[in-house]
Amino acid sequence: MATQKVGVVGGGQLARMMIPAAINLGLDLRVLAEAPGMAADIAASAVGDYLDPDTVLAFAREVDVVTFDHEHVPQAVLHALIDEGIAVHPGPDALQFAQDKLAMRRKLTELGLPTPDWGQVETSVDVAKFLSSHGGHAVVKTARGGYDGKGVRVISDEHGVDDWFTALAEDGRGGALLIEELVDFRRELAQSVARRPSGEIAAWPVVESVQRDGVCAEVIAPAPRSAAKIAAVAEDIAVRIAEGLGVTGVLAVELFETTDDRLLVNELAMRPHNTGHWTIEGSTTSQFEQHLRAVLDLPLGATGARQPWAVMVNVLGGPDGESMPQRYADAFAEHPMAKVHSYGKESRPGRKVGHVTVCGDDLDEVAYDARSTAGFFE
Amino acid sequence: MATQKVGVVGGGQLARMMIPAAINLGLDLRVLAEAPGMAADIAASAVGDYLDPDTVLAFAREVDVVTFDHEHVPQAVLHALIDEGIAVHPGPDALQFAQDKLAMRRKLTELGLPTPDWGQVETSVDVAKFLSSHGGHAVVKTARGGYDGKGVRVISDEHGVDDWFTALAEDGRGGALLIEELVDFRRELAQSVARRPSGEIAAWPVVESVQRDGVCAEVIAPAPRSAAKIAAVAEDIAVRIAEGLGVTGVLAVELFETTDDRLLVNELAMRPHNTGHWTIEGSTTSQFEQHLRAVLDLPLGATGARQPWAVMVNVLGGPDGESMPQRYADAFAEHPMAKVHSYGKESRPGRKVGHVTVCGDDLDEVAYDARSTAGFFE
Repeated sequence: MATQKVGVVGGGQLARMMIPAAINLGLDLRVLAEAPGMAADIAASAVGDYLDPDTVLAFAREVDVVTFDHEHVPQAVLHALIDEGIAVHPGPDALQFAQDKLAMRRKLTELGLPTPDWGQVETSVDVAKFLSSHGGHAVVKTARGGYDGKGVRVISDEHGVDDWFTALAEDGRGGALLIEELVDFRRELAQSVARRPSGEIAAWPVVESVQRDGVCAEVIAPAPRSAAKIAAVAEDIAVRIAEGLGVTGVLAVELFETTDDRLLVNELAMRPHNTGHWTIEGSTTSQFEQHLRAVLDLPLGATGARQPWAVMVNVLGGPDGESMPQRYADAFAEHPMAKVHSYGKESRPGRKVGHVTVCGDDLDEVAYDARSTAGFFE
Repeated sequence: MATQKVGVVGGGQLARMMIPAAINLGLDLRVLAEAPGMAADIAASAVGDYLDPDTVLAFAREVDVVTFDHEHVPQAVLHALIDEGIAVHPGPDALQFAQDKLAMRRKLTELGLPTPDWGQVETSVDVAKFLSSHGGHAVVKTARGGYDGKGVRVISDEHGVDDWFTALAEDGRGGALLIEELVDFRRELAQSVARRPSGEIAAWPVVESVQRDGVCAEVIAPAPRSAAKIAAVAEDIAVRIAEGLGVTGVLAVELFETTDDRLLVNELAMRPHNTGHWTIEGSTTSQFEQHLRAVLDLPLGATGARQPWAVMVNVLGGPDGESMPQRYADAFAEHPMAKVHSYGKESRPGRKVGHVTVCGDDLDEVAYDARSTAGFFE
């Protein structure tokens, strides 16, 4: 067995953050990037369109296992890889549930997992019916293609997503939308686990994620004031999803903690996830190292925290287009504890261009330090 | 100011371990490697001979600051860079003391720093004189080119290094050898610091290093049973050397702790050093990140330990030439806490091909875990 070669489809920051883990372990990581100069450019062995089966196949034939920076590779392309005997983790049967929110809701309900009340809607009549049985408010989501708050709309009017129905009808595929009750939640949690093809699962501590405008702004690890019971329930949910959906690699489960103390599954991601970036410094095994171990079917690493608290704050591009390194002299002078990550992406307003993690003993201090450091880059 | 470009001369494992730090910070790291396929290959922007001024100049013109994987770039080449106005850290005036052990001993003595008794010897008569005044035993070192126990010989016979005198005479340069008392030491310590061109210095905790056959085998951080006084003395020595010699970037000082409770300077390295590899996981700021910050004259990061103990064990190539990843399935199954680093180098008996670090609360457990993990790769 020579050095194992891992191929990552997609050249964004998640692929980028796998590179240090691969360098440490001496693994050969290769990236199929969408374009030159992307975040994971240094490991890009190919540039091309992940929608094109031939492009992905040519890339995949040169590696031992294929994994992903995102969940957007079409099922037909994934099956073309499988048909050639190429190892793909997570595989198409798992990924379908990350690609289609209606399929995901159906599957979770079938598995008896706790989710918000949901329905499939195809007309404003369906919407009206759901609204009337859920207090007149609901969240509607496109089944495919949404992320970071895109493709999500809170409505209280039966005609609130008529434009989406029109667009779905026009693009010829037809199709339905997912409608969900507006959950009365206390806060949002996220539970990440990793699962190997041969079955081993490892879970990190459950974390609290703070969203702003539908985008993850901040993560506190572990989730403060979490009774051991909440943590155990979160872990159990994620383990049941990983096993029930056959996920391989990292799975992140976003959860609502309701005001009546239940946990409901909000979203899933079958890859390293923004809510797990704190693990780079904060856990014995980072989500990026663990993902590589999992997709190679190697024994998983320990997932405990190195320090009592870690707080991760995202850096979004500001209005002036300054790069993060331009602000290092000022930021570093005031914040020697901060670990600053810059994704090497061009700054655009609202775009995730990096993050900051601080670890330490006192949550208030750690959070203040992380937020203040991130403030230098806004 | 665009993204800062750091050029590293030399493509070994120290350059390799700077790459994850550069990726995290979004810095553009470029390596001048000695050959294709070296440890730092993924960041190699040029391949060529660091003894050749034109090769190094062409590489250096493309970056904002030049630094090093090793201390072997000749003074003439370094000065050619300086003459062109290229930033070089550490600079030639500091590096001369890492390149010539006689110059180093002279300078440290001039600065009043504690060293073993030493002398400059050019004939067996000189050797005889030193032996007779030092109990009949001494260590002789070539002034240039030694590392990892090479160019070091313990003698008790005045003719013990006659072959070296002959070789020095034959190569036309003539030259002298360094002779030192055989220090009666309790153990070896190492103190690393980083210094910015503008003067700021940050020190990591002093560590204990265990040598086997003249090669660092294991590092315990912090040095166990170190009275606060010993730690303060070690730090003071390293700070005085960094300032006195004008070192920029990371400086590692190897120290003898004598049986009569003194610290004596053994060796210096003006770059990240094997005794600092534990900082990758064990300290808030790794020596590789700190080196990049220092050579870019950015404010330094915090140097405290993340966990009470860290033990680093080197992995030397075994007799069968197996690569480390070939043993991951077995090693990882038994040692989930271990952080394994493989340098991507071909395995040869006795060659440093990687290392293992374990961090935790109990020194005995941590050391046992690190040693057992490393044992899988031997």
